[in-house]
Amino acid sequence: MLNKYLPIVPDLNVVAANEPDLKSIISIFHVSGAVDVAHRSPIACWFSGMLCCFGGAILASVLLGEPPIEPFTNNRNIILASVIWYLIFYCPYDKFYKCCNFLPSKLFIAGMKEVTRARKIVGGVMDAHSRYRNGWLAVIAVGWAKGAGSGLIANFEQLVRGVWIPERNELLRMSYGTKVTLIGAVLFTLQQMNYLPITRHNLIFLYTMFVVSTEVAMVLFNIHHSPFAPMEVALYHMAFSWQSTFTEPPESHFKAEASDKREALGAQCPASLGATSEESETIKRRRTKKAE
Amino acid sequence: MLNKYLPIVPDLNVVAANEPDLKSIISIFHVSGAVDVAHRSPIACWFSGMLCCFGGAILASVLLGEPPIEPFTNNRNIILASVIWYLIFYCPYDKFYKCCNFLPSKLFIAGMKEVTRARKIVGGVMDAHSRYRNGWLAVIAVGWAKGAGSGLIANFEQLVRGVWIPERNELLRMSYGTKVTLIGAVLFTLQQMNYLPITRHNLIFLYTMFVVSTEVAMVLFNIHHSPFAPMEVALYHMAFSWQSTFTEPPESHFKAEASDKREALGAQCPASLGATSEESETIKRRRTKKAE
Amino acid sequence: MLNKYLPIVPDLNVVAANEPDLKSIISIFHVSGAVDVAHRSPIACWFSGMLCCFGGAILASVLLGEPPIEPFTNNRNIILASVIWYLIFYCPYDKFYKCCNFLPSKLFIAGMKEVTRARKIVGGVMDAHSRYRNGWLAVIAVGWAKGAGSGLIANFEQLVRGVWIPERNELLRMSYGTKVTLIGAVLFTLQQMNYLPITRHNLIFLYTMFVVSTEVAMVLFNIHHSPFAPMEVALYHMAFSWQSTFTEPPESHFKAEASDKREALGAQCPASLGATSEESETIKRRRTKKAE
Repeated sequence: MLNKYLPIVPDLNVVAANEPDLKSIISIFHVSGAVDVAHRSPIACWFSGMLCCFGGAILASVLLGEPPIEPFTNNRNIILASVIWYLIFYCPYDKFYKCCNFLPSKLFIAGMKEVTRARKIVGGVMDAHSRYRNGWLAVIAVGWAKGAGSGLIANFEQLVRGVWIPERNELLRMSYGTKVTLIGAVLFTLQQMNYLPITRHNLIFLYTMFVVSTEVAMVLFNIHHSPFAPMEVALYHMAFSWQSTFTEPPESHFKAEASDKREALGAQCPASLGATSEESETIKRRRTKKAE
Repeated sequence: MLNKYLPIVPDLNVVAANEPDLKSIISIFHVSGAVDVAHRSPIACWFSGMLCCFGGAILASVLLGEPPIEPFTNNRNIILASVIWYLIFYCPYDKFYKCCNFLPSKLFIAGMKEVTRARKIVGGVMDAHSRYRNGWLAVIAVGWAKGAGSGLIANFEQLVRGVWIPERNELLRMSYGTKVTLIGAVLFTLQQMNYLPITRHNLIFLYTMFVVSTEVAMVLFNIHHSPFAPMEVALYHMAFSWQSTFTEPPESHFKAEASDKREALGAQCPASLGATSEESETIKRRRTKKAE
Repeated sequence: MLNKYLPIVPDLNVVAANEPDLKSIISIFHVSGAVDVAHRSPIACWFSGMLCCFGGAILASVLLGEPPIEPFTNNRNIILASVIWYLIFYCPYDKFYKCCNFLPSKLFIAGMKEVTRARKIVGGVMDAHSRYRNGWLAVIAVGWAKGAGSGLIANFEQLVRGVWIPERNELLRMSYGTKVTLIGAVLFTLQQMNYLPITRHNLIFLYTMFVVSTEVAMVLFNIHHSPFAPMEVALYHMAFSWQSTFTEPPESHFKAEASDKREALGAQCPASLGATSEESETIKRRRTKKAE
């Protein structure tokens, strides 16, 4: 049924899916200090841009024990990424950056990134699955790394620019892109291991539709919180927070109710698999109270 | 003679000796901030736990140029480690952690860890020796990495939890476990290269007996300093501190004696291959005095 | 014509060109805190010394997906490097270090390092070229890594000694050695891909002559700034700073001239591919002015 829509899904030469991730170069430009680095040391800035662009391929190579330099052997991709990098950082009056930030082109770039995301994940999953038939965790990890690598290696990309923020990483506080890639990696791994009653083409089509439409909606309506927040909160409470019903001292009915409300309030923020600092503060306070 | 005791030595499928190191998950729980991370971001906490558990296998893979993701392909080990991790961090009232910290189970866990240590070292040594026949340093390094990996990659395990303590690492100030693993790696490498007049089985047996009994004694009598301290001090003075006899100005007999006494006092602390800050302070002061 | 001078060029067993870089061990001794680490933890100090010595080989191995432990399998090199390390750090009265710092021996050591540089670069370039026929960027990168590795991994070498300076790395502010190695890597890659009308032997000879004579001149006349500064400034203005002619508001002829002069003053420092903080300050100030 879905097959007639498939021509719009990009060509499936998935294993070589190392397209540069141009959106992330643009996003470096936002980062405070990046423009300064671009003028102080173009080489560091270029290398940091390439790490962002090919982060997924590099991280997947490292995980699979392959040369991390392999993504840099595709001259076409490197030249394309370098030209974009040059235009972003050194175009007079930041004209190119402003063009990219113009709503229609922003939508196009965001959409393109999401279209390639599925291919990257599938590329990683197939590559890892061909080596580790039963190692589903390794397969998920490689798929995730390939799809969301630039986020996961952000700490080391920042180091190239002379910035080091150890207290923040993608695992401690996941961005929407990293989360949706993790879900995709799990889905494609299940499909690859024949646990899902759907063909790979159809799954790619549905996943791409979902991420593109979500991304477009997020850009259009300027939404910044993750659309998975309610699910995450539910999952978090189910898996990691059910103990609080035991550990909370049932002093009075009123108090317990208030604490529940407080928790519910905390839960409205994108908590769970990367809870807000407020909630963690609440937990911390509660823990210290208990300790007393 | 020793062969009749050998059945109690665990099975020697040494090359695949990637058992999870459950004791190190328990030890993360102690670390300040870890419980908070467990509630803020279960995924970061889980990943940090897995890095501790499989640190040795991961580090050995990296050193040998193999996929560092390979330890994650053994589903049984991963599930076992994940269940332990979950029970440690999310059991109501920290019941499971308290059980593990109960003296008999603490002894059992510490003993189990030491029993597997010899197998891990031998696994690493044999693996490296099959590739580098004469590279004794590489063989020792891989054996050491496999046996004490979780300590050696502690800096990066902390980074996952958002903590970065550059001024502390296992090379700068070795723990007892790291030291005993280094000695084991040297011994097993010498045995592997036929420099020791003892069979591998017997060496494993003797080494395991030694580390298990030392560990049990340390847990029982709550000893925190390394039992190697006197040897280390001797070795340190022989190799790295004999110069002080030259560099010390022999102004008067009394003064030299006092300085010797001061040194001897400093040497009582677990100095040598990781000297105390006091001693290094003394050295520094002496150096600056010389400079004047 | 040049062939008759070739016997003085060292033997061309380039692929195995993993000679220890003894000059960098000597240079660690300068670093504040290193002597203290040598007395607190000889093992950390030794490992940091080895990382400096074999940094190029290690980094090239990592880039090519080979075991990073391979440089440690050459016992002769390791023993040589360890003996030098021991003499530097633990010789009474720092006699050995003073000998090395004596002008003739300093010249000899600096010259030797530059003589091996060409071999290391060619080794890396040939190794990478045999795998990636068309990946010229990867070939340059491996050649560069092999020739200037100890600088490029300095951040992690420092971490072993418990020091962490994220705001400084070789990409942000390149040393002369790193720059000349990059130029060498580009030249040897072009030669390897037959874009240069010169044989490899002759190029090695000319490059070695150039780097040795420059290094000797720098040591003799105590020059600390890069001899490439004028070229770099020209290149920088051509590639990364031509926009300022657009972005600078042409308010008055006088003002523009003054700004040009200021820029020219800034440009006298080794700017461009690692501009001085003063120039970057100027750029920053200009940018904020524009923002207002």
